[in-house]
Amino acid sequence: MYHNPFYTAEIQGPWEEISIGRLELENGGAIEDCRLAVATRGELNEARDNVILIPTWFTGTHQAWLETYIGEGHALDPSKYFIVIVNQIGNGLSTSPHTTDDASIAMSRFPFVSIGDDVVAQERLLREHFGVTELFAVVGASMGAQQTYEWAVRFPDRVHRAAPIAGTAQNTPHDHLFTQVLLDAVTSDPGFNGGEYTSHEDVAEGLKRHARVWAIMGLSTEWWKTEAWRPLEFETRDQVVEGFLEPTFAALDPNSLVVMGRKWQHGDVARHTDGDLAAALGRIRAKVFVMPISEDMFFPVRDCAAEATLIPDAELRVIDDVAGHFALFGFVPEYMEQVDRHLNELFAS
Amino acid sequence: MYHNPFYTAEIQGPWEEISIGRLELENGGAIEDCRLAVATRGELNEARDNVILIPTWFTGTHQAWLETYIGEGHALDPSKYFIVIVNQIGNGLSTSPHTTDDASIAMSRFPFVSIGDDVVAQERLLREHFGVTELFAVVGASMGAQQTYEWAVRFPDRVHRAAPIAGTAQNTPHDHLFTQVLLDAVTSDPGFNGGEYTSHEDVAEGLKRHARVWAIMGLSTEWWKTEAWRPLEFETRDQVVEGFLEPTFAALDPNSLVVMGRKWQHGDVARHTDGDLAAALGRIRAKVFVMPISEDMFFPVRDCAAEATLIPDAELRVIDDVAGHFALFGFVPEYMEQVDRHLNELFAS
Repeated sequence: MYHNPFYTAEIQGPWEEISIGRLELENGGAIEDCRLAVATRGELNEARDNVILIPTWFTGTHQAWLETYIGEGHALDPSKYFIVIVNQIGNGLSTSPHTTDDASIAMSRFPFVSIGDDVVAQERLLREHFGVTELFAVVGASMGAQQTYEWAVRFPDRVHRAAPIAGTAQNTPHDHLFTQVLLDAVTSDPGFNGGEYTSHEDVAEGLKRHARVWAIMGLSTEWWKTEAWRPLEFETRDQVVEGFLEPTFAALDPNSLVVMGRKWQHGDVARHTDGDLAAALGRIRAKVFVMPISEDMFFPVRDCAAEATLIPDAELRVIDDVAGHFALFGFVPEYMEQVDRHLNELFAS
Repeated sequence: MYHNPFYTAEIQGPWEEISIGRLELENGGAIEDCRLAVATRGELNEARDNVILIPTWFTGTHQAWLETYIGEGHALDPSKYFIVIVNQIGNGLSTSPHTTDDASIAMSRFPFVSIGDDVVAQERLLREHFGVTELFAVVGASMGAQQTYEWAVRFPDRVHRAAPIAGTAQNTPHDHLFTQVLLDAVTSDPGFNGGEYTSHEDVAEGLKRHARVWAIMGLSTEWWKTEAWRPLEFETRDQVVEGFLEPTFAALDPNSLVVMGRKWQHGDVARHTDGDLAAALGRIRAKVFVMPISEDMFFPVRDCAAEATLIPDAELRVIDDVAGHFALFGFVPEYMEQVDRHLNELFAS
């Protein structure tokens, strides 16, 4: 328990914290008072059929969506839809290791939370707090795509459209190993102290190493080669690392990264079907646009395309962006133009 | 200075240690008594025009080439060629931090050695020790490809054929960052102690983390996805990591990895031409087969192909292998069949 300024309204903009009560966890244990950090835009219509749910990605918060993806002129248009962004458990805003009042789950004692736990929590939130049971769409990227798939498989009759962007329904072996490298960078720092540091600054070096792993996997070989960072007003490659990536990750809470990283590693909708991925994806009733990013180094197009073939009503919509995974940040306008075009088409279907 | 059993004839097979005397280093400093670990196969012919030089890759030694690439039935056939494998400086067999008798360069005091330094050393070795000035071919993979390019650019009239496999003439920005992640894993281990550990076992955890970085970059997403490791007689993904990759890297000398990693980071033939890569590669007179591996995660085909277009007499010969960079280990016979086919054609030209 310590104060980390990144997780404040000053940085994140306002959000609402909503308790959903006790959350039993899929892999054992419970969060006695699970509090979800929620931001909404737009209004719920009378038919309650205009709800778009957005779960968040690794390190991401509602703010990333509000800044880049949502607003007038975007497919995610608050004048049409009631958009509910739910921060994932452990992301620093929803119940998290460094902020919880519950000493039994603080810091290193935080339990293992799964993608399924997030979806169960979100479903309860929507039903009990907003009176919503059907979703016009679920839209999520990266770990948000994992949650999107989990929604579509777990509640097939209640999700009408799904847009998993840059993520998979079943985490791949490579992705599992990649996430381990990310975790290694943080937990190997002596300052991490098994999760019992006194400030994220104790883990500054580990967080910077973590950032440098993202430099080689979050951004493509070609993005670096073509110096596609120049429009972002950096002058050198090292400035991108030291002036953007390192500070971005050094601000974060280390236990939060560990909780999310482990969750990511174990994302797999085939848990519901004894390991049979085809059976799990075959359950989906939603219209799905599978939207990988062309240069993604760890959710490559072919992995997403393979899953798309197992979904009854899916289309593969590849987003062309040299950045790779971090295209999600919306570095160039062409990225959002593609996302909006695909989402508009999905929403019109 | 400590004893590491990996760098013994028991593991590596026999080699000859040849002093080339004092080696002035490109970036300052010198190695007073530079000793190169050399293994040869075949006989030098009277015309002295059948010499194939093989420089080694990161962590590799002459043994990797002898086991997989050289012998009867291979293009690298000792009945035709005098094959000289020179271990790169700092690789644990040639003059290296943990074995040198020269206290001024032992362990953390080892100087920064460049790809150019290796090539200067090799040229002197060949000329003074073997009486060889012209090379039928240079064949090298990964960091060996860097040395191959350096040879072809530095001594254009003396290299007649060159086969850079899975490597570039100018290290890419992504590759620089990737190498940094590899170095981070080792040097961040408190047991590394700034290079002044008492045994590589002090750095066991860092070396294992280093191995896990290789797991995600040395092997492709698709190799892991398709469980292409099954023919290697592993039963699970984790066995590949814990039973193969971790022990492979945990056996190595940490300072050796740091010396080679820094060398790799700064490989760039455009040093010779004020940063103009086209001018540097335009100097080459050798017939060059540029041989990237199809699924290489960090020397991607397109980076190698782009360099091939700048070489007067080059052909792009892509080796198709799902493993990616570590295809170099020769996991499947189809790999060596392709290498042999291309090299045979190059040698016949």
